[in-house]
Amino acid sequence: MKLKNNLRTETGWEIIENSFDPDQLVTTGSNFMIGNGYLGYRGTFEEWEAREYVACVVTDTWDQAEGSQWSELCNVPNGLFTQLFVDNDMFSAFSGKTEDYYRALDLRHGLNQRKLTWRSPKGKKVALEVEKFASLVNHHLISMSYRFKALHKGRYRLLTGIDGKVWSINGEHFKSYTPIQEENLIGFNLKTSESGSQVVVCEGLKINGGHVLESEVIEDSRRILREFVFELEADEEIHIHKLVSVTHANEVKNPKEVALAEVEEGLKQGHDRLKKAHQSQWDDFWTVSDIRISGNEEAQVLARFNLYQAFIATPRHANLPIGARGLSCQVYQGAAFWDQETFNLKMFIYTHPEIARRLVTYRHDTLDGARRKAKNLGYYGAFYAWTSGKTGDELFPDYFFTDVLTGRKIRNHFNCWQIHISPDVVYGIWSYYEATGDWDFMLNHGAEVLFEVSQFLVSRVHFKKDKNRYELIRLLGPDEYHENVDNNAYTNYLSRYALQKAVIVYREITRRAPERMEELERLTGISENSPETWKEIADLIYIPEADTKTGVIEQFDGYFQLEDVRPDQVRKRLIDPGEYWGWPNGVAIATQVLKQADVIQLLALMGGFPEKVLTANYEYYEPRTEHGSSLSPSVHALVAVKAGHHEEAYRYFLEAATIDLYNASKKVLSGGSFLGGIHTAAAGGVWLIIVEGFAGFQVTEEGIRFKPALPESWNSLAFSLKVKNCLLDIQLNPSSITVKSTAQNGDNIKIFVDDEVALLQPGQTAIL
Amino acid sequence: MKLKNNLRTETGWEIIENSFDPDQLVTTGSNFMIGNGYLGYRGTFEEWEAREYVACVVTDTWDQAEGSQWSELCNVPNGLFTQLFVDNDMFSAFSGKTEDYYRALDLRHGLNQRKLTWRSPKGKKVALEVEKFASLVNHHLISMSYRFKALHKGRYRLLTGIDGKVWSINGEHFKSYTPIQEENLIGFNLKTSESGSQVVVCEGLKINGGHVLESEVIEDSRRILREFVFELEADEEIHIHKLVSVTHANEVKNPKEVALAEVEEGLKQGHDRLKKAHQSQWDDFWTVSDIRISGNEEAQVLARFNLYQAFIATPRHANLPIGARGLSCQVYQGAAFWDQETFNLKMFIYTHPEIARRLVTYRHDTLDGARRKAKNLGYYGAFYAWTSGKTGDELFPDYFFTDVLTGRKIRNHFNCWQIHISPDVVYGIWSYYEATGDWDFMLNHGAEVLFEVSQFLVSRVHFKKDKNRYELIRLLGPDEYHENVDNNAYTNYLSRYALQKAVIVYREITRRAPERMEELERLTGISENSPETWKEIADLIYIPEADTKTGVIEQFDGYFQLEDVRPDQVRKRLIDPGEYWGWPNGVAIATQVLKQADVIQLLALMGGFPEKVLTANYEYYEPRTEHGSSLSPSVHALVAVKAGHHEEAYRYFLEAATIDLYNASKKVLSGGSFLGGIHTAAAGGVWLIIVEGFAGFQVTEEGIRFKPALPESWNSLAFSLKVKNCLLDIQLNPSSITVKSTAQNGDNIKIFVDDEVALLQPGQTAIL
Repeated sequence: MKLKNNLRTETGWEIIENSFDPDQLVTTGSNFMIGNGYLGYRGTFEEWEAREYVACVVTDTWDQAEGSQWSELCNVPNGLFTQLFVDNDMFSAFSGKTEDYYRALDLRHGLNQRKLTWRSPKGKKVALEVEKFASLVNHHLISMSYRFKALHKGRYRLLTGIDGKVWSINGEHFKSYTPIQEENLIGFNLKTSESGSQVVVCEGLKINGGHVLESEVIEDSRRILREFVFELEADEEIHIHKLVSVTHANEVKNPKEVALAEVEEGLKQGHDRLKKAHQSQWDDFWTVSDIRISGNEEAQVLARFNLYQAFIATPRHANLPIGARGLSCQVYQGAAFWDQETFNLKMFIYTHPEIARRLVTYRHDTLDGARRKAKNLGYYGAFYAWTSGKTGDELFPDYFFTDVLTGRKIRNHFNCWQIHISPDVVYGIWSYYEATGDWDFMLNHGAEVLFEVSQFLVSRVHFKKDKNRYELIRLLGPDEYHENVDNNAYTNYLSRYALQKAVIVYREITRRAPERMEELERLTGISENSPETWKEIADLIYIPEADTKTGVIEQFDGYFQLEDVRPDQVRKRLIDPGEYWGWPNGVAIATQVLKQADVIQLLALMGGFPEKVLTANYEYYEPRTEHGSSLSPSVHALVAVKAGHHEEAYRYFLEAATIDLYNASKKVLSGGSFLGGIHTAAAGGVWLIIVEGFAGFQVTEEGIRFKPALPESWNSLAFSLKVKNCLLDIQLNPSSITVKSTAQNGDNIKIFVDDEVALLQPGQTAIL
Repeated sequence: MKLKNNLRTETGWEIIENSFDPDQLVTTGSNFMIGNGYLGYRGTFEEWEAREYVACVVTDTWDQAEGSQWSELCNVPNGLFTQLFVDNDMFSAFSGKTEDYYRALDLRHGLNQRKLTWRSPKGKKVALEVEKFASLVNHHLISMSYRFKALHKGRYRLLTGIDGKVWSINGEHFKSYTPIQEENLIGFNLKTSESGSQVVVCEGLKINGGHVLESEVIEDSRRILREFVFELEADEEIHIHKLVSVTHANEVKNPKEVALAEVEEGLKQGHDRLKKAHQSQWDDFWTVSDIRISGNEEAQVLARFNLYQAFIATPRHANLPIGARGLSCQVYQGAAFWDQETFNLKMFIYTHPEIARRLVTYRHDTLDGARRKAKNLGYYGAFYAWTSGKTGDELFPDYFFTDVLTGRKIRNHFNCWQIHISPDVVYGIWSYYEATGDWDFMLNHGAEVLFEVSQFLVSRVHFKKDKNRYELIRLLGPDEYHENVDNNAYTNYLSRYALQKAVIVYREITRRAPERMEELERLTGISENSPETWKEIADLIYIPEADTKTGVIEQFDGYFQLEDVRPDQVRKRLIDPGEYWGWPNGVAIATQVLKQADVIQLLALMGGFPEKVLTANYEYYEPRTEHGSSLSPSVHALVAVKAGHHEEAYRYFLEAATIDLYNASKKVLSGGSFLGGIHTAAAGGVWLIIVEGFAGFQVTEEGIRFKPALPESWNSLAFSLKVKNCLLDIQLNPSSITVKSTAQNGDNIKIFVDDEVALLQPGQTAIL
């Protein structure tokens, strides 16, 4: 079926591009990318270079380029670089004539494919067929099959190797490029700029067909290439298998040896055998993760596209963060934000809890960084980094945006006032624990985080004696247009939540594992009085309640006193369209206009609010929200469902699901900063909208609950969930829900739908 | 002696201008002004109009012009307006030729005088001699003697009356101008724009000499004038006595009747008799207020110039505020700022306590405004207005400065975060009470203020349980370049002071006047528990102490972590020289560069700091201070003396004393706002420097103390003080202090100098 722009899908399992649009270079490079949670390789063309935003971004390679303000992941040299010359005309989408163009992203198996016929400026035709994938079997490897057929006799020259002149947005990340030439393999042995850590990109190839006239290795300062010249007859075909390994010393001991050995071994297997094993892993992924929608093919392929992007962005091989742009580019430093817990984690908790465990364990691994941040700012406990990389130290710079009107840098306070990140981490840990019951994790990892976050809150709250309440002062909520506010509803609710969970866990460990509690007390410096303090704060922290008349919760103290205008009116006050709307003097700060609505976010995360409150708040905040954040549509979709605004919910679902694919994200540049790439949280949000929104899935103490609100155009919706030791297959249609507990499950589980309840034994199916 | 620029003095009692400098229009208009605390009449020329910044600013006429952001005092129609034509050439400083130019301000008697000879473009000469004063006897009256002598025969035409086309910086303040013509008097009956309140300007004149050829009244929409034509022989002289009365309905019941009657009566007396009575009042003022300096004539005249300006700016006729620019123009809204208490009040406390009582009573009169402000901002008690007019409601607008780079208004938080104004008011009240022992005032006015300020502080503080201390969060100290700071040293110290004084007064009233305490409890809502709360906060409020190593007190939490640069370096970062340096994104905000030093201000107000601490802080903060405020030099002079930096002290004294006279104030425009006019606080500061600085005067519980540090060039310094029911005459010379207790005094007084002490009985003199 035809999708928007020049896109289509055939089976609901792929995105196909019908024509090449040079204006969409940045976007399609992201959308057609391949990856495996270790590396991301943008869906660019093999003959492209830095100016076309080619990138291979690798996890755990944080490096601060000289003169840059922050560290980010390295974009390593491009091992797939391949240029084809037909009688000295370089094959290019920008010259000659391209026919039968086809570019596809195979979502089921993580394959990027391109097929076309090209007529050179001199009139010679060649047919090209390329396929590549980032292996799920061995995450270091990218395999490419590059096939071309001479449609006219001629001299064909291939320049292929490793291009180190890459797109690096904040400066050079390698201080040395040592070429490798061993046997038939070439590569670069690189040292990162800041720490001198080793990164290796190594490439090998096998050529089938034709006859190589000449062959030589060409090196320049940041390139190592091989040149092959063929004299081909018409219809003669060349098939190249190119295999690249990217390794680094933060992951393997001998990056060079490992990379060389892997490429050598992989070349022996060949593209097709490697691909088969890779596909099998993808099949395993989809067995649990697929969401099947019937009745709406577009929704079907959008769901899969977003699941795919969320999955390839997420490290499975180590306890590492999900970057806010995944591995699609260097923006946002390949680092975790609060999105990880609030937008991405749940999909993994309920489909691949082993990945979710890595993500929550990552927060435990980085506890020391959070401790250092708290201490640096005059607090104690754990204040998690707004932008969290390897160590958990704050990566977010004091000065991020630029005032485009004056050129002066802006001191935004994301790193020091957006304290909700710490309770958000607790939210993630508790959500994981609630769904999995993973006591071992809680005991050995989670609890320490919970306790340290509570201690941080102890150091952060202020007590108002005359009001007998605790307050949180000088905050920045998720709505980043309003810095320096007090008692932000989202932050205060989440902080209470975090303190309450810490009290529960403290009691549980004291009861079940007193010796571990002793150790935890040593590690965190808490004492048996601490949980009393946490409880006192949880009991007395000021919680802005829904107004008894209107049902609306005030976003922060004094919010209702701000100018009550709408985003379009405020937009007209911009002097420059690229202005940042927020701190210190942007157009939104003195108004009720929001970047994203904190209260809506709160309602999306927290249960227990009556529908009346959901509706009142949705209707109040939605028109005041600018949706300046890519996080905004999915959270609005989610709450719109709960608030009974089904049409709007679906509109926001589509917006969230197409932010990247249809390039609906308005802003690539904001306040002078490039913010492009895959919006990973929006991708995670699509799972939330479908499962928590349209299916109304919710975990309760006793079991799980559904409150379905299937979109009108959907005949049925099916997905699987792992929860409370059960793998469940769920199928919804407009009149019923079918839940199947798979035979292998260990426990019974209770399913609630409205007033109905079914107790499901392993192997049983219930229709409600 | 010659002073700076084109100025000189002859007796140390006057400022004489030797030549007319058109570039100094704004400045000389302020410097040569006359006034009486009810009205200020700028020292401009009689023939001038709005473009030459003519103004007659009248107290208690607050009005908000249409389209203006704030209310301000009215500049009323100019009743002295007089133009002279010689054969149709208008006499003007800008045309023809002026000879024997003389403009003087007689400080002793508050007279503005001008003498000159003028040759018209047609070559006819006329001699002019004008004198005017704003009466101290009847504050409604301005009397002018206007004399001209024809040096050539000719036709002389005089156009004189009331010019309503005045300089009004934020719009039109009168919605109607009804002309008055009664008997020989003309005038305007005006209605203010906002409230329609009545203001009357009425004028009468008497002409002596010559023969009036023609005479007629000319009216246009905002002018009422009389034209007189004379045919004069050479050496024939005309003498006009012009008398103006300015009244308004906020002060008198029948402004029109009063004004007409006063002018009629005054004209009968004539200029000279009116002047004699006026002079006698000035003599009374100087009897107590004069500061006599021998050895340095410049210092002598500067001292008097500043005493003069401080005096004429200060209402004596009613409980009204001292405007930050006195009555010299409309800037700063004719309203009181914290300057009133910290810079201007003390001179009156110790020389004219009856005026001081009016000023502190004004704070009691405006308590309801302060209550309303507290309530509007979510507090209770009394949060005094940053800019305080008649009612004490906040006059300072949310948006004051403009970002000159973008044209966007800036939300400065002077009005809501600069909370030290409330303890500053207490400081003023306590200083008055300490010096005068005026129990009646404390009981009936002061106490209520003290209690309500303490209640405000109760509502404003936050308790940090984990640190067992109270904190003040989100402040703006006197250093306005750093908004949004915590635990500002100045604010925290002063707040503790205010709470402590309230506890003392509560106890005293409970003991001495329990029935009044019952009434006060009713008025303020406090209970017998309240003083316990005040005491607890006073005991536990965080007080940033002098660092044990360096002796430096940190201005606010985290100040030492800011970039440590100097004002000149920061100045280089300006994109536009007119930029505001502070909030939200000015060049100083992330640096240690200060507008004025809070800690220095603290040390200037509060005793009890060891000299080591005084020196350490002076040496630390002085080089980091930009002195962007006219308050800065005097406070630096004061602390420099105490810190032993005598040369710098004298340099800052000269700077403070000449800000206006030598036009040393660098900034007439800041952040897009006009800030010219007389810097009244600097004038008050001169008294502080001399008496509290160079003489080292200090009130203690037992008596008074001097710690003299006479400037090198001064042979002696003499002044009078009213303190603890005594009028004392003090004379310092480099080796001794002579204190004379006048015979009329009721009490004995103890005088301390270093380790010496003298108990002085009425009529006695001590040399120490």
